[in-house]
Amino acid sequence: MRPSGRAADEMRAITIETGFTKHAEGSVLIGFGDTKVLVTASVEERVPPFMRGKGEGWVTAEYSMLPRATHTRGSREAAKGKQSGRTQEIQRLIGRSLRAVTDLKKLGERQITLDCDVIQADGGTRTASISGAWVALRLAVQGLIDSGAIKEDPLTRKVAAVSCGIHNGTPVLDLDYIEDSSADADANFVLIQGGHIAEVQATAEGATYDEEGLLRLLRLARMGCDQIFAAQEKAVAR
Amino acid sequence: MRPSGRAADEMRAITIETGFTKHAEGSVLIGFGDTKVLVTASVEERVPPFMRGKGEGWVTAEYSMLPRATHTRGSREAAKGKQSGRTQEIQRLIGRSLRAVTDLKKLGERQITLDCDVIQADGGTRTASISGAWVALRLAVQGLIDSGAIKEDPLTRKVAAVSCGIHNGTPVLDLDYIEDSSADADANFVLIQGGHIAEVQATAEGATYDEEGLLRLLRLARMGCDQIFAAQEKAVAR
Amino acid sequence: MRPSGRAADEMRAITIETGFTKHAEGSVLIGFGDTKVLVTASVEERVPPFMRGKGEGWVTAEYSMLPRATHTRGSREAAKGKQSGRTQEIQRLIGRSLRAVTDLKKLGERQITLDCDVIQADGGTRTASISGAWVALRLAVQGLIDSGAIKEDPLTRKVAAVSCGIHNGTPVLDLDYIEDSSADADANFVLIQGGHIAEVQATAEGATYDEEGLLRLLRLARMGCDQIFAAQEKAVAR
Amino acid sequence: MRPSGRAADEMRAITIETGFTKHAEGSVLIGFGDTKVLVTASVEERVPPFMRGKGEGWVTAEYSMLPRATHTRGSREAAKGKQSGRTQEIQRLIGRSLRAVTDLKKLGERQITLDCDVIQADGGTRTASISGAWVALRLAVQGLIDSGAIKEDPLTRKVAAVSCGIHNGTPVLDLDYIEDSSADADANFVLIQGGHIAEVQATAEGATYDEEGLLRLLRLARMGCDQIFAAQEKAVAR
Amino acid sequence: MRPSGRAADEMRAITIETGFTKHAEGSVLIGFGDTKVLVTASVEERVPPFMRGKGEGWVTAEYSMLPRATHTRGSREAAKGKQSGRTQEIQRLIGRSLRAVTDLKKLGERQITLDCDVIQADGGTRTASISGAWVALRLAVQGLIDSGAIKEDPLTRKVAAVSCGIHNGTPVLDLDYIEDSSADADANFVLIQGGHIAEVQATAEGATYDEEGLLRLLRLARMGCDQIFAAQEKAVAR
Amino acid sequence: MRPSGRAADEMRAITIETGFTKHAEGSVLIGFGDTKVLVTASVEERVPPFMRGKGEGWVTAEYSMLPRATHTRGSREAAKGKQSGRTQEIQRLIGRSLRAVTDLKKLGERQITLDCDVIQADGGTRTASISGAWVALRLAVQGLIDSGAIKEDPLTRKVAAVSCGIHNGTPVLDLDYIEDSSADADANFVLIQGGHIAEVQATAEGATYDEEGLLRLLRLARMGCDQIFAAQEKAVAR
Repeated sequence: MRPSGRAADEMRAITIETGFTKHAEGSVLIGFGDTKVLVTASVEERVPPFMRGKGEGWVTAEYSMLPRATHTRGSREAAKGKQSGRTQEIQRLIGRSLRAVTDLKKLGERQITLDCDVIQADGGTRTASISGAWVALRLAVQGLIDSGAIKEDPLTRKVAAVSCGIHNGTPVLDLDYIEDSSADADANFVLIQGGHIAEVQATAEGATYDEEGLLRLLRLARMGCDQIFAAQEKAVAR
Repeated sequence: MRPSGRAADEMRAITIETGFTKHAEGSVLIGFGDTKVLVTASVEERVPPFMRGKGEGWVTAEYSMLPRATHTRGSREAAKGKQSGRTQEIQRLIGRSLRAVTDLKKLGERQITLDCDVIQADGGTRTASISGAWVALRLAVQGLIDSGAIKEDPLTRKVAAVSCGIHNGTPVLDLDYIEDSSADADANFVLIQGGHIAEVQATAEGATYDEEGLLRLLRLARMGCDQIFAAQEKAVAR
Repeated sequence: MRPSGRAADEMRAITIETGFTKHAEGSVLIGFGDTKVLVTASVEERVPPFMRGKGEGWVTAEYSMLPRATHTRGSREAAKGKQSGRTQEIQRLIGRSLRAVTDLKKLGERQITLDCDVIQADGGTRTASISGAWVALRLAVQGLIDSGAIKEDPLTRKVAAVSCGIHNGTPVLDLDYIEDSSADADANFVLIQGGHIAEVQATAEGATYDEEGLLRLLRLARMGCDQIFAAQEKAVAR
Repeated sequence: MRPSGRAADEMRAITIETGFTKHAEGSVLIGFGDTKVLVTASVEERVPPFMRGKGEGWVTAEYSMLPRATHTRGSREAAKGKQSGRTQEIQRLIGRSLRAVTDLKKLGERQITLDCDVIQADGGTRTASISGAWVALRLAVQGLIDSGAIKEDPLTRKVAAVSCGIHNGTPVLDLDYIEDSSADADANFVLIQGGHIAEVQATAEGATYDEEGLLRLLRLARMGCDQIFAAQEKAVAR
Repeated sequence: MRPSGRAADEMRAITIETGFTKHAEGSVLIGFGDTKVLVTASVEERVPPFMRGKGEGWVTAEYSMLPRATHTRGSREAAKGKQSGRTQEIQRLIGRSLRAVTDLKKLGERQITLDCDVIQADGGTRTASISGAWVALRLAVQGLIDSGAIKEDPLTRKVAAVSCGIHNGTPVLDLDYIEDSSADADANFVLIQGGHIAEVQATAEGATYDEEGLLRLLRLARMGCDQIFAAQEKAVAR
Repeated sequence: MRPSGRAADEMRAITIETGFTKHAEGSVLIGFGDTKVLVTASVEERVPPFMRGKGEGWVTAEYSMLPRATHTRGSREAAKGKQSGRTQEIQRLIGRSLRAVTDLKKLGERQITLDCDVIQADGGTRTASISGAWVALRLAVQGLIDSGAIKEDPLTRKVAAVSCGIHNGTPVLDLDYIEDSSADADANFVLIQGGHIAEVQATAEGATYDEEGLLRLLRLARMGCDQIFAAQEKAVAR
């Protein structure tokens, strides 16, 4: 029995509210249960120095937790003067995940930045960020297509992410904070619609697992991502 | 005629949604029109080093804009590794304003931090922050009273803030971004319920004004703050 | 009775020594009693990035206290690796105050930096800095006019600043350190010769004041600034 | 055919030189072909603040590349004033991997820091670091056991790591720099002797892979780690 | 012939004004010609962590140039967020030089910090700083003796410093900025009254010199320091 | 008698291994006894901003100690976010020393960076760095000559460095860590083959010395550098 009463293969409620803020080219408030992340996509007509002159675009991400998104207040990274290793690791993961489904050539020489700000945290903030970032990116890309700035759609596949773990000996889907704190193993899967894997990050600080365990988690992740893909589809339908 | 069609002495819609996030001891999403600020109050049972051993508490504030709260994306202060002078100036103002109505002795040796994160900006982010921070602080203080941690109410007066300015030669109340960008003069007033002044920050980079001009802006500010006090009252009523 | 024995509307002795250092285009040691600030104006034939290509100049300021300008040694900001919020707030105020009287178009595409270094502090360091900065700026601008680099004078009005406060219930002019530490309210006024207001920064952490109180402080400030204008005039006369 | 002429399941030469430097409690120069990493284990009789008073120890890691470990000189992180996201991600991975095989209670209240400095880079610096760190940690732990500081061995299992990837459509073991630069997918596996998985970090920026692909890479990793375990065994035998 | 018209073995005018600022335990404005340095000595009743519990005191120094002490404005180290290598090198030299003549045991467990702020630079700022720092330290120590805090004088010898160099092939004493910029070699000598050497820092970026050259510079330095010792004696006489 | 049993004028064993790493244009592992420094020379076809457009090259150096090069682990400068004053002082010294023997005009508009990373420390790390840096620089310059990039040899003289000090009252050559920790005086000499002095840095925190003492140390340094010059010659012979 999970602390939340969910079945082992049951996702929390997925909520996606588009247009949550008005200035960004794409803006989404995504919720995986009590985890709420505001994701905005900002289009800029320039690329970072290492991409200049290639005729290609770039997709990147930044991630942050509001200081009181969590049970106890965390110190503000801007006040401390640096981003933690955890923050950098997560924002690099988000960026890679979205680039895995973006054709940078078709995007043209522009950059889209996905800002993922966690408003409230209850486990799975990075996976909600990736899943919401796809929606924000889709909205921003659609705007570029609608305005004629882009001819061919650079974003034809969806990407989503979910965490799975072994909790009290049972593989479970979409860990919340209570499960995450006491899980024997924790794995984040970034999957592409149609079945392919973009990223796996599986960690076992306490217990470890074998091949069979990894595959079971992967199968749970597929089930979760299918639900996220459906929610993404609904959110961007018009 | 103001760009928004408002009368010279007309506030934008004031919205206050309490309990916007679940972990903080006080949590408020305040809106002055399209300006939206999430304010959380976090209680910690310790005080900063300079206050130790005095038997008094402390109230402080931190302020930040999400990168895409604005028309064009601003760089993230955590990524740049330092808070701008503007950010520091604003968070110092918020802290002083709230301390002006808090009896630190009655608060006891604990600290309340008001985190003001601007979700969407359309002018007046610092005044919305102060006005919302009072509500978050009130909720956190009420929790301390209800739990018996505090005996006497340290927060018996309300504080609110509003900006006024001279726009196209006319003194106007509660400037939005369009007005703010082209105002001849801009003043932020922090007022205490009952008529007293906590802070005045009046600036005239372009034009300047005289004594009479300053008084007119102050009178508009009184009108605006009376409406904010009413909205605060309604938000914390139970 | 004030600790210094001064009358409520009495300024401390204003001393202005021009040419205190030899390299800067303008150099002034200004004293408000025991508060001594060295202000230099440096002309550079370039403007900051956000002003490029506008055919206009820029005036900016930096402020610092020597570590032992005060009663007890403060740590050196260069050693700590960052400027405090107080420092940034003050240098932004100085810059805005001087820009309020400078016609940036007539200055041409060049920058003048006003470095205000507090040699000795006894209250009122920001107001002495602004008042001295006008003299240093005037000297630098005069050099540009004399050399033919500038055709029309971009600096036709004076600006000065003074602090006022309520001490032991009495509004007083030009607070020294002892008064400042125990004042009920503290206001800095930046005034332009001829009567207009450039900036008001009025704070009441302890007590608060009403409209009448604010006006009384403003009237004292006018009296003080008139004396500063006279001292500035004398300092730049040739 | 691989650029190096190796078979798909062929590791590069594994070299482990213990005692490479004399001051550290454990010191190893590990080579995976031309990748050379100096790993030292330093024992300190204190634990970080978050571990104090638990009666347990801590194992942590730091990672750095010498500026000219690579084909073109990279800038020195100490000179830039911050560690890159990549560096932080890697050192967090090394620390977690070693903690996965250390019984922190048996270690006692002391910290062991594994410094991994890449002398020469040719792909696989993080996997060589983890594999070498186990040897350095083993030597340091042995010293603590020999001196009587530790009663029970806290390190009874080996941990090793290797990278695998899909290069020109073929799954290959232990990528060198040339392969790594052009691989379709890249996965780092941290395995524990006996068959269990401690960490998987699989990334596919370009192509993606399916379940079958992931398993093939995992099987290659097992083959590689078995060779590393043997080399580790030989290095610490006495 | 030297640019200033001085003889090869002629010092610039040495001026020492004690009590230049009022808060510090020792305060001196020292001039070597147009080079002017404000040195303050601050006594604090604590020692740095590495000196705690030894029953000894500590003497340390900090050094800074005001941004416009020089011909062209240098950027402010506090604004850049770090001290340059040059600054750190100089302040370490000043600290060592003063410690060379201080009996730290007799000083007792307290720290004296010598802040050397260059008001105007014309070559020799570090040597003027050291020479002035001795006077400030002497005044602070005298205050401790007078108040009874110290029983035995910890500062019985004088220390002074001067630069020498080879300019146009001739060894010269006390280089000013013009000479310093074009000298073939440049050496700073820190000497102790009575003839001993505390520090030599001799550099030859362009030309180099031999043993004989080094000795000639040392002899010039002795002549210069004898004049500085006399000026120091006069400054502290009472 | 010296702790190591060496004679007063006896150097430790000098070992120079060229080609220690493969990517750098010059790479050397130099040993002065147990002090081991890896020095690489990196050629880049650009010069720093202050050298642009002069038709000259630049030679610069960076220095670092691996955290566990020493008896107890030192914290990593990259993790602390800044280089210590000692590090900066040393890398500036190394750069100046090498520039003293390089004809920057003949080098052409390119930069050579000498990275000196101390693998193991036992006293004399800066002098070993300078002596090894000459070899790495020589190898890199030879490569530029061989490839035809440089016409005339910009490096016709050798430079080497050694420390001397007064230990138990006796002047000794090439101090190791034990001697360095307890020496009465410590001097680093940078000498140019043929007898000239490039740099002298002589410090006496405890005792001081006179002219005669300085000369004795210089004579020991000449003896030591002659041996280093011979070892350098042998290392670069082909």
